[in-house]
Amino acid sequence: MSEPLKYLLDERDIPNHWYNIAADLPKPPPPPRHPATGAPCTADDLRPLFPDALIAQEMSAEREIAIPGEVRDILRLWRPSPLFRARRLERALDTPARIYYKYEGVSPAGSHKPNTAVPQAYYNKVEGVRRLATETGAGQWGSSLAMACNFFGLECKVFMVKVSFNHKPYRRALMETYGATVTASPSDETASGRSILAADPECPGSLGIAISEAVEVAAAREDTKYALGSVLNHVLLHQTVTGLECFKQMEMAGDEPDVIVGCTGGGSNFAGIAFPYIGRGLRGGRRPRVVAVEPDACPTLTRGRYAYDYGDTAKLTPLVKMHTLGSSFVPPGFHAGGLRYHGMAPLVSHVLDLGLIEAVSVAQLEIFEAGVQFARAEGIVPAPEACHAVAVAMKEALRCKAEGRPQAILFNLCGHGHFDMQAYIDYFGGKLRNYAYPEHEIAMALAGLPSIVD
Amino acid sequence: MSEPLKYLLDERDIPNHWYNIAADLPKPPPPPRHPATGAPCTADDLRPLFPDALIAQEMSAEREIAIPGEVRDILRLWRPSPLFRARRLERALDTPARIYYKYEGVSPAGSHKPNTAVPQAYYNKVEGVRRLATETGAGQWGSSLAMACNFFGLECKVFMVKVSFNHKPYRRALMETYGATVTASPSDETASGRSILAADPECPGSLGIAISEAVEVAAAREDTKYALGSVLNHVLLHQTVTGLECFKQMEMAGDEPDVIVGCTGGGSNFAGIAFPYIGRGLRGGRRPRVVAVEPDACPTLTRGRYAYDYGDTAKLTPLVKMHTLGSSFVPPGFHAGGLRYHGMAPLVSHVLDLGLIEAVSVAQLEIFEAGVQFARAEGIVPAPEACHAVAVAMKEALRCKAEGRPQAILFNLCGHGHFDMQAYIDYFGGKLRNYAYPEHEIAMALAGLPSIVD
Repeated sequence: MSEPLKYLLDERDIPNHWYNIAADLPKPPPPPRHPATGAPCTADDLRPLFPDALIAQEMSAEREIAIPGEVRDILRLWRPSPLFRARRLERALDTPARIYYKYEGVSPAGSHKPNTAVPQAYYNKVEGVRRLATETGAGQWGSSLAMACNFFGLECKVFMVKVSFNHKPYRRALMETYGATVTASPSDETASGRSILAADPECPGSLGIAISEAVEVAAAREDTKYALGSVLNHVLLHQTVTGLECFKQMEMAGDEPDVIVGCTGGGSNFAGIAFPYIGRGLRGGRRPRVVAVEPDACPTLTRGRYAYDYGDTAKLTPLVKMHTLGSSFVPPGFHAGGLRYHGMAPLVSHVLDLGLIEAVSVAQLEIFEAGVQFARAEGIVPAPEACHAVAVAMKEALRCKAEGRPQAILFNLCGHGHFDMQAYIDYFGGKLRNYAYPEHEIAMALAGLPSIVD
Repeated sequence: MSEPLKYLLDERDIPNHWYNIAADLPKPPPPPRHPATGAPCTADDLRPLFPDALIAQEMSAEREIAIPGEVRDILRLWRPSPLFRARRLERALDTPARIYYKYEGVSPAGSHKPNTAVPQAYYNKVEGVRRLATETGAGQWGSSLAMACNFFGLECKVFMVKVSFNHKPYRRALMETYGATVTASPSDETASGRSILAADPECPGSLGIAISEAVEVAAAREDTKYALGSVLNHVLLHQTVTGLECFKQMEMAGDEPDVIVGCTGGGSNFAGIAFPYIGRGLRGGRRPRVVAVEPDACPTLTRGRYAYDYGDTAKLTPLVKMHTLGSSFVPPGFHAGGLRYHGMAPLVSHVLDLGLIEAVSVAQLEIFEAGVQFARAEGIVPAPEACHAVAVAMKEALRCKAEGRPQAILFNLCGHGHFDMQAYIDYFGGKLRNYAYPEHEIAMALAGLPSIVD
């Protein structure tokens, strides 16, 4: 028992600030642009949707942004999250690599999403907002925002992609337990929803459609703002508590990561663990390899185009430059609900464009195989999203074995799979398959991109 | 942020021994008796079902039993579990009470059950057993044993109550993820199962029936033993890590519990937190009030008889003296799957008989109301079983408020509710109701008790 499995911090060790990578980038990220005019967005453009404090964070170039005491006071219900050394997995793989994972499944919602839900609810509350509207796919984000709104006494209105609303009642129940109102999207409560339903009454919904509905509701009512669970700069900022805690925990372990791995849907859990390390490298420190992992079936970073695009289907959001498959892209039905977004966080897209990170995609069957092997070695059953990071961390460990290199691998285990057991049932039942888009389908999806030149 | 919410221990602080309350009791508990002869059981009687080390623990009068290093090495994947001060709940209740909860939902299976699953698998492995058979209701125990067997390379055969097998596929998937084989009970694989099915092909099953099947399978094969998730002395023993950790954590908090609360199905999570404190009181230390909480719909401690009874439906297990509703008792369909057993741990029954603890029962709607209030205050959604403890801890806090007494209340939050959201859906949907047995039904169930005089 001399070698620890877990590196735990005291709640006083929750970081006092978030880390803003924009301060350290060699080239600033391209600005968001107004959806109608194409002109760079001003704070005024964003004001119907977000409170001033979050708009300031979205546009900030300050390296450190203080975390309010009221936010830390909620985060400490579960933070700092543990850093594990996966000694049993290392033995199972017979690898000389040292594998570490930061476990974000300890939050009450079971994922990393509350890290940003709490500050978003807080800043809205401070500025007098009474209600937040948002969208959710599988429900990880919706349940996190529901919890955060409840803590600050805000109403929470969640548009849940209809196919998930019907097939995943448990996350919905979690949102309702926290007091949120959950509506299946497309709904007849918004113009965007009604127009979709008019064209296709049986439309199963998509994240892009649900975003349109939530944005519309937020823009329409003075007391209501919008909250997004990934993609935006301030969301990624809030997730950096993860990587900042890892600094201290890796120091406790007397080690430093050679490779950092995270899965990417919108990009926030990946940025949370990776950006503090990338920034430290940019300031002259050690530079680990950083690997973003996405599904073959939604290959934004690996096969999308780096271009200006809309964040939603109804084209209500600002245009942002990102790796995208086009806002009309609808991924096939696969189970990593959190990794189905057509675009990618502009900051993650930018650091890929700058060559600061690598991106790979993995097949569905491979990620579940990895998830099961991880569960049998470490006990924790990973969420399907997290299985993508597990799969590539394991690949890296096997590469270390093949090369005889005892490297340190750090990955973000962004959530547990207790709400996702249907995906494991389908995997064991042989109902899942791999899916890789043919080139012409990707080309077709990209043909619809708006023609704005950077 | 000066007042901590969490008291965390290092993995080196996992106790080195389990605490055996039998050493401190003023009167020894009545011995188990052979199901056929009624004579006190010998180790030989138990040998077909359990390995020698567990039989020795079952009969031990030693106060401290060392925890093997191999067991601690697995426990530290999630232990020590955190002790929380429920400051937000205290404020919501406006109580002068200090409310603490020990959170066992941090285990990979989401409950306290792995605390005993791991040592049971370990001792069987050491003695050359190749396979463990067990039963499970909602699946908390089955998934914990599946995980533990996987860690030690044992096969795991789980008889799952058929109604849960059909309606709760997610826990089943968790067991299968850990590599276990899960069979719906009653099954045609055992004589007990076949005789039940012959009488009623549509039988939805019960814990008592599933125990019969698992015991039969274990007794029939040399390489197979049986494992039970509650009730037995050695199981309660293994759970005492919980209370022993609380000693250190309450010391960190600079506080001592005046009231300890736990929910009781078979009795193990309750004993885990309570027995170390009761024992300390028996040895001359501080004596907190200790309250066992059970559902109105399965009122073993509050309305059952303290008598010798069988542990299973087919009367294959030894007779044990316990608070029981009769081995033919089938509780109504309510959702706290872990609290449906017809009997109660003999040691818990004995300490109640000795006047060392109190027992109360609570109504179903009340426990979900408490669970939702707890989730909104503290974030964590409790398992329905744990909601029973939450409800009574809250009642005690309100009593403190009424009496103006700033007491310290400690309860065991034995699991999270992420696998139990259907129960919350039913609660919100108005589909749950309270259920209290009429006196004549209890009398009828008790009429079938075996006539063995203590």
